[in-house]
Amino acid sequence: MKVSIIGTTGFGGVELLRILHQHPTFQIQSIHSTKDEIPIWEEYPHLYRLLDKKLEPINSEQIADQSEIVFLATPSGISGQLASEFVDKDIKVIDLSGDLRLPSSDYKAWYKHEPVHESLLSKAVYGLSEWNMELIKNSNFIANPGCYPTASLLSLAPVVKEDLIDPASIVIDAKSGVSGAGKSLSRNTSMSEANENLRVYKVNQHQHTPEIEQQLLQWNNSIQPVTFTTHLLPITRGIMTTAYVQLKNEMRTTQLLELYSEIYHQHPFIRIRPENTFPSIKEVAGSNYCDIGLHADNRTGRLTIVSVIDNLMKGAAGQAVQNANLMSGFDVMTGLDFVPMYP
Amino acid sequence: MKVSIIGTTGFGGVELLRILHQHPTFQIQSIHSTKDEIPIWEEYPHLYRLLDKKLEPINSEQIADQSEIVFLATPSGISGQLASEFVDKDIKVIDLSGDLRLPSSDYKAWYKHEPVHESLLSKAVYGLSEWNMELIKNSNFIANPGCYPTASLLSLAPVVKEDLIDPASIVIDAKSGVSGAGKSLSRNTSMSEANENLRVYKVNQHQHTPEIEQQLLQWNNSIQPVTFTTHLLPITRGIMTTAYVQLKNEMRTTQLLELYSEIYHQHPFIRIRPENTFPSIKEVAGSNYCDIGLHADNRTGRLTIVSVIDNLMKGAAGQAVQNANLMSGFDVMTGLDFVPMYP
Amino acid sequence: MKVSIIGTTGFGGVELLRILHQHPTFQIQSIHSTKDEIPIWEEYPHLYRLLDKKLEPINSEQIADQSEIVFLATPSGISGQLASEFVDKDIKVIDLSGDLRLPSSDYKAWYKHEPVHESLLSKAVYGLSEWNMELIKNSNFIANPGCYPTASLLSLAPVVKEDLIDPASIVIDAKSGVSGAGKSLSRNTSMSEANENLRVYKVNQHQHTPEIEQQLLQWNNSIQPVTFTTHLLPITRGIMTTAYVQLKNEMRTTQLLELYSEIYHQHPFIRIRPENTFPSIKEVAGSNYCDIGLHADNRTGRLTIVSVIDNLMKGAAGQAVQNANLMSGFDVMTGLDFVPMYP
Amino acid sequence: MKVSIIGTTGFGGVELLRILHQHPTFQIQSIHSTKDEIPIWEEYPHLYRLLDKKLEPINSEQIADQSEIVFLATPSGISGQLASEFVDKDIKVIDLSGDLRLPSSDYKAWYKHEPVHESLLSKAVYGLSEWNMELIKNSNFIANPGCYPTASLLSLAPVVKEDLIDPASIVIDAKSGVSGAGKSLSRNTSMSEANENLRVYKVNQHQHTPEIEQQLLQWNNSIQPVTFTTHLLPITRGIMTTAYVQLKNEMRTTQLLELYSEIYHQHPFIRIRPENTFPSIKEVAGSNYCDIGLHADNRTGRLTIVSVIDNLMKGAAGQAVQNANLMSGFDVMTGLDFVPMYP
Repeated sequence: MKVSIIGTTGFGGVELLRILHQHPTFQIQSIHSTKDEIPIWEEYPHLYRLLDKKLEPINSEQIADQSEIVFLATPSGISGQLASEFVDKDIKVIDLSGDLRLPSSDYKAWYKHEPVHESLLSKAVYGLSEWNMELIKNSNFIANPGCYPTASLLSLAPVVKEDLIDPASIVIDAKSGVSGAGKSLSRNTSMSEANENLRVYKVNQHQHTPEIEQQLLQWNNSIQPVTFTTHLLPITRGIMTTAYVQLKNEMRTTQLLELYSEIYHQHPFIRIRPENTFPSIKEVAGSNYCDIGLHADNRTGRLTIVSVIDNLMKGAAGQAVQNANLMSGFDVMTGLDFVPMYP
Repeated sequence: MKVSIIGTTGFGGVELLRILHQHPTFQIQSIHSTKDEIPIWEEYPHLYRLLDKKLEPINSEQIADQSEIVFLATPSGISGQLASEFVDKDIKVIDLSGDLRLPSSDYKAWYKHEPVHESLLSKAVYGLSEWNMELIKNSNFIANPGCYPTASLLSLAPVVKEDLIDPASIVIDAKSGVSGAGKSLSRNTSMSEANENLRVYKVNQHQHTPEIEQQLLQWNNSIQPVTFTTHLLPITRGIMTTAYVQLKNEMRTTQLLELYSEIYHQHPFIRIRPENTFPSIKEVAGSNYCDIGLHADNRTGRLTIVSVIDNLMKGAAGQAVQNANLMSGFDVMTGLDFVPMYP
Repeated sequence: MKVSIIGTTGFGGVELLRILHQHPTFQIQSIHSTKDEIPIWEEYPHLYRLLDKKLEPINSEQIADQSEIVFLATPSGISGQLASEFVDKDIKVIDLSGDLRLPSSDYKAWYKHEPVHESLLSKAVYGLSEWNMELIKNSNFIANPGCYPTASLLSLAPVVKEDLIDPASIVIDAKSGVSGAGKSLSRNTSMSEANENLRVYKVNQHQHTPEIEQQLLQWNNSIQPVTFTTHLLPITRGIMTTAYVQLKNEMRTTQLLELYSEIYHQHPFIRIRPENTFPSIKEVAGSNYCDIGLHADNRTGRLTIVSVIDNLMKGAAGQAVQNANLMSGFDVMTGLDFVPMYP
Repeated sequence: MKVSIIGTTGFGGVELLRILHQHPTFQIQSIHSTKDEIPIWEEYPHLYRLLDKKLEPINSEQIADQSEIVFLATPSGISGQLASEFVDKDIKVIDLSGDLRLPSSDYKAWYKHEPVHESLLSKAVYGLSEWNMELIKNSNFIANPGCYPTASLLSLAPVVKEDLIDPASIVIDAKSGVSGAGKSLSRNTSMSEANENLRVYKVNQHQHTPEIEQQLLQWNNSIQPVTFTTHLLPITRGIMTTAYVQLKNEMRTTQLLELYSEIYHQHPFIRIRPENTFPSIKEVAGSNYCDIGLHADNRTGRLTIVSVIDNLMKGAAGQAVQNANLMSGFDVMTGLDFVPMYP
């Protein structure tokens, strides 16, 4: 199957190249960018002699003619228009930006951009692969989830769906590597200032907050607004979310681990860790896994859930290919069986 | 004034050397360790030609004869015995270990060591400098606070003392650099495994939990057990605590910042950041500052308080010297006016 | 083909697992270690639910019965004995340690261990894949090269073989990430001391020096002793060697690049970078590539050659599998087409 | 003595603030920048409540009226004009840029900027503190050395001056942290791309090359062009230079160490390490020390000299203040007795 990438030179785009280059059935047809028409390895020398494709301008018609799937790895604010051209022609589209994930009013309030047209928005399926599998399989237009929401939602889903927690008690303390901020330069992600540092940012104002809340509400309509805090880690890749919730009734850690294991049993990318162990960020580096560990504290009645992903993989390009697999009727693992790179 | 250090070769001990070498009134009389009697610069070459002292064995009698203040930077489990010899002779003692901070029952439960004798324990004053100033001034035996409790307590004190929060709502998500684990070697703090990583550890089991709760209860006896989680950051120095509490009544961020500013007004090491700004770990590196930023979220009624310290300074050696200054009648800033090293 | 790994819990061993788990023809038969018989994921949680094998004791007879290839990823000093048992039974053996790479006298002088028996030593082929290809194909016993020698030799081979340089002028300034020191704990590779640091070590005494010189001499018997310096970088993976040689006659950079490109033309893992560009360590991370850039300076008549590899891949496990491919008659790229993980 | 800083918001400028804030005799009179007139702590929050000064525009006349010493921490290309206004009024000027260090022809060739006027250039004294002490004491206009030249020259001076080496044999392999590139944003110094990486840059083209050669030639006019290579380390602060030179006659390491120790005996910032030990970058972090270790290899007749500095201290602001001390008749250590921050 021929696939094209638009917005290839961002970190999401280049991670798509890493995956798709090794994918057994998807074949990279063309790569696009608003940059100069240079070979991709001039921009990313690690691809030298490995991928000879040139960056091409974004000619939608031509892309539509040649591709069965289009990945949009463009920045927030522009994929809306691009998507509609392909969706109208019934070409599969997976959008990695945040533009198709929220109702217009939420989008305006949190992103401070103009939202896309309602008619387009209504066609997009939220691509949280493990939870929207059937919808994804039958859709040809996916709003690929944000990195933080992916880690947060996968860790909270079982207790929220099973209505086991105080719906007003959710606190998510999230930490991300700098690649989550993308390739554009900023003082906060410069080495001199990010290194040997930890920075909290967008406190109570991160645009992923409504994305998390919206999905939680679909699972359990009693859920109240969540506290969601983001920190910038001095690493390149990886997200950890540490979620705190108040249990409605006392539960033992083992009970909860059994519940999680059962729920995620058929999902190979979700690994529920054994009791008394917790995942570290590096243990999923370069892979599409989401690892989850948890502990219920009988002193406080509170449950702590720790979830880690590679933000460029399960948090972006990896989940995008997972969705493309689903849309194409492939096994979900196809081309995604990367062993985490450790150490 | 002549001071001695016991346990000089740990990270707390060597940071004491960095401070005391430049202190205008304290003079390093002798340095002690159970290691070989080598010049300290053989163990720490950064002190070459700067500090020529040799490590000496721990001869308590001799130390007592020659010193007015003794810093105990020894590991947990051994300072109890050492301290009593000096306390009995009315020599000022500042103990950086955790041995003198908790009631025996709590100590046994969380440290899994034998606690020190009650008679000694009862003499120690908890050295949270800003809050126990009068007791510290009149004491000659200080239990220097732990690194995590220092950051946590300084950030929570105002709202706890003023009874502004739901007493069962405290969640502290704490992150520390690897130097907090000390100089002893472990797989988790080896570069290959700590680097490009974030690791959660001792979930709901960290021995600093009762130290935090005990002080909170002294301030407000309605406080319930707290959730306290610790993460290992891929940096050497620094702690950030992100605390989440439910406000009893709606309050604006500005009101709370005014409260904090007023309470800490006369304490030069506590810097309350202006509205909409938050401290980063590196902004206190190498200094004795504790910087605090906060935000009250009207969506959730929850208050987020971010606090940063250098764990070896305000979290250990810096606060120890601050306490020594107080015990000696000096200005609290004496010898501690380090500008943070940035970038 | 069934393969076994002895010494699985070191970094070389676990990297072999990462490669072999995805290899299309090699199948991991058994994994061995002197550690407890636990599932490998208890030691390396990143392999949880991915690799269920248990560590087994080192029962040579059983391993010989079940395996067609044995990888020895054991520490220096013990693989000699292990190897002979398999070699005698005509099972393919690839030894990643330094025990089979040097004549006994050099081994004694630089490693300070007892060398292996001459009869075994004489059977081992030095596994520098690109240069000993025919010998490797026809051998069943490979001494896999050291990480530093691999990067150094690949970068020097063309000018040494073509006799283009002053044979007494070779200086190699090498830099390695901490994983090169293996998994055993040491103060120099602890995070607190390795981080934000650069450390030079074993100046003029590194045991890889004679390994480099021996191969250079085979290529050109006029070569004089080289200066070889090693530095410990504050990163996990990767080696860069910056080599300095005096050109016999003035040459232009383009001429030399043409020579290198021609020589390495048929070797997919060696990427000669275009003029005025040089490889960075991260551009080969997680892959088996060795990237080389060079510049001839007409001010000094000196040539600077920069070479980078991932020390655990091309510098250890990757080259080992490359050699196993050669020994098995497979294409050299089989199971090794990892795209570098960037960023 | 009243001092002013122009170009305060760069890393050199802010390091001057760190030093001068604690300096016993220099007093910061005013700080200047082309940025908005905001309090410095808005740009650098680590200075909050510590330094209340506002950034002021660069009004040369006013600065001249109020200051006895002016530090120019401005980028390359603009300090020439600024300097002349102060020099003409006989105000002490220390220029941290590269504009006053080279003859016009070299400056043009390597910096690709227009050089400053000859009349100004001729007044500047090269401020390599340990070697130009008398000239510096009697000058009021200092061209403060570059970071790489400082480390390189201090390590080579003894053998070059004593004519112990082959004058055509000098190779300097230099490694620097990212703060050396300054505060301006670039892809190479962004965290995602600098982290877990090592990058070689400006091979045989670094503008510090002629600065090094010019001083070496003043010491020994037989010196030939040097090979000078620079690498970008994934750390914030620190430089290591590893220099390789061919000894004219065989010498033992001890002899050379004695020579170095004798030559630098009266210079407190130069620490010659004992035999078989070498300095690491972190062992001088935050301090003004330059630590040197060396080894003569009798296999090759080559001498390896390792030198480390903190590039923002001895490589910039520290040496600038050292020069200001000299110009003011103070002890060279005044306000510069920082203990390295370790770990």
